[in-house]
Amino acid sequence: MITEIRNATIVTVDAHDTVIDGGTLVIDGDLIAEVLPANVAPSAPADQVVDAHGGIVMPGLVNAHTHLAMTMFRGFADDRDLQGFLDRLFPVEERVLSEETVRLGARLAFAESLRAGCTSALDMFWWPDATIDEAAIAGFRLQAGPIFIGFPGPDHTPFTGRIAKAERTGPHRWLFAHGTYTMTPDELGQVGELARRTGARFHIHASENDSEVSDVRARYGRTPVELLDDHGLLGPTTVLAHAVVLNDDEVARLGETRTAVAHCPLSNMKLASGVCRVPDLLAAGATVGLGTDGCASSNDLDLFIGMRMAALLHKGVRKDATLLPAPAVLRMATIGSAQALGIGDIVGSIEVGKRADIVRLDPDSPSLTPSFEAASTIVYAASRGDVVDVWVNGRQVVDNRVLTTIDLPATLTALRSLTRTF
Amino acid sequence: MITEIRNATIVTVDAHDTVIDGGTLVIDGDLIAEVLPANVAPSAPADQVVDAHGGIVMPGLVNAHTHLAMTMFRGFADDRDLQGFLDRLFPVEERVLSEETVRLGARLAFAESLRAGCTSALDMFWWPDATIDEAAIAGFRLQAGPIFIGFPGPDHTPFTGRIAKAERTGPHRWLFAHGTYTMTPDELGQVGELARRTGARFHIHASENDSEVSDVRARYGRTPVELLDDHGLLGPTTVLAHAVVLNDDEVARLGETRTAVAHCPLSNMKLASGVCRVPDLLAAGATVGLGTDGCASSNDLDLFIGMRMAALLHKGVRKDATLLPAPAVLRMATIGSAQALGIGDIVGSIEVGKRADIVRLDPDSPSLTPSFEAASTIVYAASRGDVVDVWVNGRQVVDNRVLTTIDLPATLTALRSLTRTF
Repeated sequence: MITEIRNATIVTVDAHDTVIDGGTLVIDGDLIAEVLPANVAPSAPADQVVDAHGGIVMPGLVNAHTHLAMTMFRGFADDRDLQGFLDRLFPVEERVLSEETVRLGARLAFAESLRAGCTSALDMFWWPDATIDEAAIAGFRLQAGPIFIGFPGPDHTPFTGRIAKAERTGPHRWLFAHGTYTMTPDELGQVGELARRTGARFHIHASENDSEVSDVRARYGRTPVELLDDHGLLGPTTVLAHAVVLNDDEVARLGETRTAVAHCPLSNMKLASGVCRVPDLLAAGATVGLGTDGCASSNDLDLFIGMRMAALLHKGVRKDATLLPAPAVLRMATIGSAQALGIGDIVGSIEVGKRADIVRLDPDSPSLTPSFEAASTIVYAASRGDVVDVWVNGRQVVDNRVLTTIDLPATLTALRSLTRTF
Repeated sequence: MITEIRNATIVTVDAHDTVIDGGTLVIDGDLIAEVLPANVAPSAPADQVVDAHGGIVMPGLVNAHTHLAMTMFRGFADDRDLQGFLDRLFPVEERVLSEETVRLGARLAFAESLRAGCTSALDMFWWPDATIDEAAIAGFRLQAGPIFIGFPGPDHTPFTGRIAKAERTGPHRWLFAHGTYTMTPDELGQVGELARRTGARFHIHASENDSEVSDVRARYGRTPVELLDDHGLLGPTTVLAHAVVLNDDEVARLGETRTAVAHCPLSNMKLASGVCRVPDLLAAGATVGLGTDGCASSNDLDLFIGMRMAALLHKGVRKDATLLPAPAVLRMATIGSAQALGIGDIVGSIEVGKRADIVRLDPDSPSLTPSFEAASTIVYAASRGDVVDVWVNGRQVVDNRVLTTIDLPATLTALRSLTRTF
């Protein structure tokens, strides 16, 4: 199957941030086969031709940190301090989470993500196999794996049982530790050892807010980042979610070790955690991707709003309007996240030979006109409602705003029926 | 003409923040005729019946500060400091602005605003008559009037000429002074005197950033707010745009005088101005509405993103997750802005007898499901793409996402042709 998208403003997000006006993008099977300037014809006729009418065609957005199935808790615990938030959320999580409800929550998350131009995510949640299964049905590029925590969790599995199961079912591409405040250093070390031995990538919440950091320091005399460093868990195959509360040494160390950070500004602001030192992390050499966090804290899975917040927040708080310009923020939500997830070689930009994870925006959205610089249009003016077509791995999963792989009305009906009991 | 919107989650934003599940809203002519709970039938048969399918029906959003025709400069001067921004913008403004281009820019702004659920705005710009004219065609509830500034401006009118023209064409509902840094205290006083004498409301940029305040203080020994107070220009018929840099005395004084502030967080962050003390202003008794500012600084006219930013920013910066909860932010963007504009008695909430400025959201948007609290769904999860129907003054101006009063393709074509020359 060959698909030709013609007459497009192709925002490649390649190493030179190349933008091609009036270009043509050819998808052959699961790959980007050709990226052509104006007035150059593709080498072979296409099975499907899409006229972009001059509109933007861009790489699929990549969500560097989320808990997808938590769509079911969207708006369930807003405008509360952390304790109030947990007090409201934990009992209902304990009561309703199961493989079946996770499956349903994840299905809604894929519907929402794809409609919003997000084609890939790093998802930390219980019953990951259910979510992995739903991702395959939805045609979503999911990164997931077993999760480790120091208490039994809603799936009622003790830590030792989790390790045993991961050994039995592995090797896994990812191992997730919940946080240094929800497991002992010894448990953290066991997960680290398993990751090293099996070549797994590693993801953990770290230094999200002041109380986490002072808690961990009080218990172990080390900050979360120091603990991770002690266990050899910093490095290019590690993704830290949040990393809001960092001292200068920690910023430097994350840079030196080329550790990745999933910046989640919408969640950090809503939960009053503070502002991640993104400009400093980038300057130090860390990889920074963009995440939404789960819908209990951030309420949606919209990386367009995430980009807007990332672009505005640091300017406003540091009073420097030149910080994180639009192209840098677009990189963060595409190739930056993809590199954080270890898939930067196959997605995250529009380049020949990469997998075709592609988003097309409405050329006639009033908010996208005029467009002097495509990255600025995407970051400062586009919204998820402007997404009209989406391809993942060459498969069209959104066609003129309609999902081709998910029965949305049935999913919404089932979700409403479930959440009525919360 | 009677329109009945049934099976709606009616978010009234009345004094009690009443939300009616499964309710019916009846529009008769330009008025809200009935607001009925579930299972209560309207008193008369309708000419048009809209089934909301359980989705949200809410008051039209009100933009408390903008420069509508600046849609033509969207994204023209991003990621620059204030001087770089002005250096890029001013020459092209001088070259291209005219009654005709303002008319075109305003037309796009009405298209964009209505599609994004914004039904009313306070618009400060050159050639206001052109914008007023376009608003009438678009069916948009515009608040506008003559603008005063100490130099001739793109319409090449000296200050004295502006005063003479306003006297000749008045009385006007609004008089706009650009700022205390772009006119002398004497000129400010003349505008104030004219406003008082003719009963006009008054709108001005004030204390947007540190350099403006220190500049004005260096010149006149007074802050912008103090200068306005000296001239008797604080009070319930005055709207200050931005008001970011305020000391405690100024916050108290704005509260005492019941002055209105148009909070523009997207613009303030992008231009690195800082964070308006909204929680303090509300506590002091000031009226606070929500604005986008013009598209050269904020890039779009989307009050959904504005609400999200207002709800998140203050929590994150003050590290208090309970600040500005969703219902308060929704009030700010509806009845708060309407009160700031002096139209709170006729719009800004869904109540019998008010004008029918109504927005209906997509009941099947994945991002709006589940919905535990309607205000939270609107503020933390909805986006302009979820707006399906809009009525202004009882007239349907957006029908299933299509504008009924504006030829959007022709507007976009004309705008692109104009802006290609920038």
